[in-house]
Formats: sequence, structure tokens, C-alpha cells
Amino acid sequence: MAKPEKHVFICTQQRPQGHPRGSCGADRDAFSVFAAFSMELDQRGLFNKVQVTSTGCMGPCNQGVSVLVYPEGVMYRGITQADISTVIEQHLVGGKPVESLLMPAEHWG
Amino acid sequence: MAKPEKHVFICTQQRPQGHPRGSCGADRDAFSVFAAFSMELDQRGLFNKVQVTSTGCMGPCNQGVSVLVYPEGVMYRGITQADISTVIEQHLVGGKPVESLLMPAEHWG
Repeated sequence: MAKPEKHVFICTQQRPQGHPRGSCGADRDAFSVFAAFSMELDQRGLFNKVQVTSTGCMGPCNQGVSVLVYPEGVMYRGITQADISTVIEQHLVGGKPVESLLMPAEHWG
Repeated sequence: MAKPEKHVFICTQQRPQGHPRGSCGADRDAFSVFAAFSMELDQRGLFNKVQVTSTGCMGPCNQGVSVLVYPEGVMYRGITQADISTVIEQHLVGGKPVESLLMPAEHWG
């Protein structure tokens, strides 16, 4: 594994049903987002440039699914499978973070 | 949670005993490394600058415990509780990656 140009971290934290904080993994289908993200990168032949890693809690649980891109440190909130193509195309390939999906500054600013 | 100056990702991937790849979480006490890292940052009052997040597999399983620091993208291999103070003091506070603990370039270079 070479050091990637972009490293995408996707929260898949799981908490029990009814937990007051909720969680990206149990309440917001983060595992499907993780799987779909990986598949689309593979289909586009981007695995040599972009690495995807699942994570435990990154903080803003009520904003999930939280997705964080390094080295620039851009965090997205509320990511669903429908957003994946846009993030890959516009940000990971095109270099422009997707403004409409950014985590609010009070959680990551 | 403000965006941290340094973000430390610690692999806590778990695989069943006897799995050919092994894993940082099941075979190399990664959860203790994660807990000790977090505690030492807290004791030093660094939680406003450094965030610690557990992760799934980051790739070089036979080199674990794997620890990755962004935004610089420096990866460490074989981290134990005995290495934590050095990484915090020299790298996260002092800004100089710990050469002797770096992941070999064939795994991350």
C-alpha cells in the first residue's frame, strides 16, 4: 500500500438502539456508505490514489454519517449513498470540496 | 469539537484468532494503545489540539499496531504503550516525526 493522495475516513461507530447520542453505524447506514464508497473508487480505478478507512466516533454524532478527508482536513456531514459520486468527482478527483455537504463550523471549524 | 491541529488514527481492527493476516486489535493490544494514548493526551491538556480516532484496517497488518498522523500523513508501525510518550513529546508537541518508529517505505511511502 502506497501512501495515498487522499485518505477518506468514514465513521461506522455503533451504539445500542436508543442511545442518546445515536451513531453513524447503527442509525444512519454508515456501513452501506463505506461499502458503496469503496466500490465506486474501485470502479473508477482510484484505489491507487484514494484510501478509504472506517473509524470509530469522530465527534459530531448527530450530524452523521461523518466523512473526513485528509490531508486537507475537510469534514462532511450527513453523507448518504446519493452523495458519494459528487464527493468523488468534485473533491477527490477535481480538488474542490463540496460546499453544500460540509460539516457546520461549530462542529469542525 | 474544533478541527484539531493533529489527528491521530490508531488501528484497532479485530480478526478471529488464527486469521492469516492477524490484526492490530486482536493480536497486538491496540485497544490498550488507544486508551493509553487518549489518557496521556488528556493528562497533558492536549485534547484541544490533538484528536485520537480508532480505525478499521489501514493496510500493513503484519506491522501493527499501525498509527497514522494527519495532516502530515506520517505512519508508525509496531506502536506499543512504551512508545506513546515519545510520539506525543517529539512529534505531536515538538513537530519532529520519530524516525525509529516509522512504517517502512514499502508499506507507506
